[in-house]
Amino acid sequence: MEHLLPRPDELAFATDLYQLTMMAAYRARPESERATSTFELFVRRLPEGRAFLVAAGLEQALAYLSELRFTGAQVDWLRTLPVFAHAHPEFFEWLRDFELTGSVDAVPEGTIVFPNEPLLRVRAPLAQAQLVETYLLATLNAQTLIASKAARVRLAAQGRTAIDFGARRAHGFGAATLATRASWIAGLDGTSNVLAAQKLGVPVLGTAAHAFIMSYEDERDAFAAYHRHYPDHCVLLIDTYDTLEGCRRAAAIGPSLKGVRLDSGDLGELSRACRAILDERGLTKTRIVASGDLNELKIAALLAEGAPIDSFGVGTELVTSRDQPALGGVYKLVERTEGDRRIPVMKLSEGKVTWPSAKQVHRVLDADGRLVRDVIELADAPAPQPPPGGRVEPLLQEVMRDGRVTAPADATDVHAARARCAAQLASLPEGLTRLEGYDPPPTEIGPALQTLADELRAARGVPDDRRPIDERKEP
Amino acid sequence: MEHLLPRPDELAFATDLYQLTMMAAYRARPESERATSTFELFVRRLPEGRAFLVAAGLEQALAYLSELRFTGAQVDWLRTLPVFAHAHPEFFEWLRDFELTGSVDAVPEGTIVFPNEPLLRVRAPLAQAQLVETYLLATLNAQTLIASKAARVRLAAQGRTAIDFGARRAHGFGAATLATRASWIAGLDGTSNVLAAQKLGVPVLGTAAHAFIMSYEDERDAFAAYHRHYPDHCVLLIDTYDTLEGCRRAAAIGPSLKGVRLDSGDLGELSRACRAILDERGLTKTRIVASGDLNELKIAALLAEGAPIDSFGVGTELVTSRDQPALGGVYKLVERTEGDRRIPVMKLSEGKVTWPSAKQVHRVLDADGRLVRDVIELADAPAPQPPPGGRVEPLLQEVMRDGRVTAPADATDVHAARARCAAQLASLPEGLTRLEGYDPPPTEIGPALQTLADELRAARGVPDDRRPIDERKEP
Repeated sequence: MEHLLPRPDELAFATDLYQLTMMAAYRARPESERATSTFELFVRRLPEGRAFLVAAGLEQALAYLSELRFTGAQVDWLRTLPVFAHAHPEFFEWLRDFELTGSVDAVPEGTIVFPNEPLLRVRAPLAQAQLVETYLLATLNAQTLIASKAARVRLAAQGRTAIDFGARRAHGFGAATLATRASWIAGLDGTSNVLAAQKLGVPVLGTAAHAFIMSYEDERDAFAAYHRHYPDHCVLLIDTYDTLEGCRRAAAIGPSLKGVRLDSGDLGELSRACRAILDERGLTKTRIVASGDLNELKIAALLAEGAPIDSFGVGTELVTSRDQPALGGVYKLVERTEGDRRIPVMKLSEGKVTWPSAKQVHRVLDADGRLVRDVIELADAPAPQPPPGGRVEPLLQEVMRDGRVTAPADATDVHAARARCAAQLASLPEGLTRLEGYDPPPTEIGPALQTLADELRAARGVPDDRRPIDERKEP
Repeated sequence: MEHLLPRPDELAFATDLYQLTMMAAYRARPESERATSTFELFVRRLPEGRAFLVAAGLEQALAYLSELRFTGAQVDWLRTLPVFAHAHPEFFEWLRDFELTGSVDAVPEGTIVFPNEPLLRVRAPLAQAQLVETYLLATLNAQTLIASKAARVRLAAQGRTAIDFGARRAHGFGAATLATRASWIAGLDGTSNVLAAQKLGVPVLGTAAHAFIMSYEDERDAFAAYHRHYPDHCVLLIDTYDTLEGCRRAAAIGPSLKGVRLDSGDLGELSRACRAILDERGLTKTRIVASGDLNELKIAALLAEGAPIDSFGVGTELVTSRDQPALGGVYKLVERTEGDRRIPVMKLSEGKVTWPSAKQVHRVLDADGRLVRDVIELADAPAPQPPPGGRVEPLLQEVMRDGRVTAPADATDVHAARARCAAQLASLPEGLTRLEGYDPPPTEIGPALQTLADELRAARGVPDDRRPIDERKEP
């Protein structure tokens, strides 16, 4: 019986086979081995229904990059593959001693990002940079996907509590735990997932299930028993039989009743009726919790109609990002070196330009700290001027140098990331915080990058049949 | 730097908090502790676009159930939670010694199932059965979701090769690995995921990326180099510049060229043109591989228009089950005991009946081995009569007794499961193998189950306000 949970010491195999076959070929070419290549990981287009993304997953990416080793057993197994029958033995010796020696820049977790903005940049020999593509994409795609969805839930719920209830619907428990992390970064208030809560230091929350209520003959006995056990944390699920009668029975507990939970029916109407029942009995501090296939649009609609709901439990829709269950992050070569010469790489196909060379994103904020625009510029070009009283902040920072993690703790700490995301959400112009009908991404290309791109375009002496196509999504 | 990959020894925490708070309350009631409860895990309705489901994930479920222990550190951590401030110390002592003593029946992996058919049944004391709900749902939901999608890809691709290319788009690498397993069970032919392939003993496949081609000045040099390295496994990616020119350049390799890969453009048109180029040069055995945001409907359309594609790489759409990214499996109490008395539990709300008591699914096959119908019946009632020359097979079998795994190896072995799924796909009537416009599920309720349900309905002496509502999705 195999749990099939990947172990940290076997993550060198967390890659696509073609990365390994390409590595063997690169290794046999001294020029590609000596050369440094620069890859950037970014999202080319926003999924429909997303005005922005929230970068997440960097801690797991750095844990992977910094500990990446092949075990002897893995190398032996590779040698048995028919595809490697003719591979040079030196390749396998090299794998046994493999360590990443490259350097990495990235945006800190919780940063709001837009299309074409690098979330992460790897500078390393080609074979190294190629190997890590798959895991980096899987890790950053997954958490950024969920953090971006969770941020919408956060915006929709306004000041109300919003909790991750999705463990049972995520794509396995590994995905559930990543979803909790991403949701916390994006500002949700806790989770029902005990393992994730313990690992992350996130509040763990829960009430009771219908099975508990139904294990008693009488709902009142179930309520009394739950209150006896959890006198200071008594949130009662009231919709097992008749919701309003359940609410009255729960209210009989008295003012120590912390909350009632609705999990079905018309949540707007029921919450208003429950609020009236509770208030009538003086239980003005008893909270109303709602759950049941909620998403950000339903939450916004409930609050717009004045539903007096204090806390939302969000499950399936959150942890699978149900309306957009995949993020199309890509990892593209943007520069290579030949000797001392840096050669920017640019894909030029119609409508799918990949911007060349290593880049920085300069966030321009006005005097009130509000986001004005992002300028995507060559990493070594000057930053744009700040507006009067405002400032300009670079988003990418060094997180790994020569194979050693150099990230400041707050780049990956979930609580720091959460604070960063909250501040950045607050800095967004209103046109980007709408759930629907939001503005396009406020990004522009810096002058140095534009000039380089224009030069490369103009100087494209390569014949038309050498123009690379673009936007590759799968191995 | 934390990988955030769940470890097998910490899976007791892979649950929702409310399971633990309910457990503490159950423990304090001797009658609920002594009583045996029976829960069934099933899917109430098929997601749109699915004519059937393929059960998968049982091996991971049994690994979890059989090894489930709380570590001392976990129990200590629970004691620090404010919600447990008033919990009886006996509860924590009991957790330290916790072992599952229950019994489990399940359908073997790779079995085709329909709504309301139990995939798994747990009989255990209530507190035990409650704890395991979250992980069982996460595990079986996730793999059954992907296996059911993969089966559609299998049907669409007909006899052609179909490969899992989705690692970078799954919800983290744990999800990627589960997706490979589920896809293999459902009949795909291999994966690009090295870790999953090694763990599962599944063929690992791949070609090369555009980065490899572009690391050479001239596409011809890249092709020659790849062929030199992989003379017997040379599949060349030909669409980096001009696809048809790429095909001609690849064809110059000669008959040892194993294949060409298309990853963009009109795959139908390009594959026909490439086939002509290859055939003209006598490369009639060189295969054409296609990839790029494929799903079962696109594959079916390509084959319907006669595209000479031999192999399909499927990524994002497969591993996220993009059109239906969540499966709504539920885990419901269907029976409890009081002393020697077995009390069937039935939810009676309008339109959402949960069928009571422990059930068996009898699959009725005709003389040609073709599925006629499934009869969902009480587990201890007689099986239906087979049609002339046909047979009846029970789907659920014992897989765990008194906490020990008793499953035959072929219930969870991925290769046995794959063979089972293939046989069952072949046994489906044509009306269920269509990708669109398929027939409704061929299930019926057996007479004993129907009688019991009618009796419970009629005898529902409970007042209307005691009628439980149904279909709970989140904690």
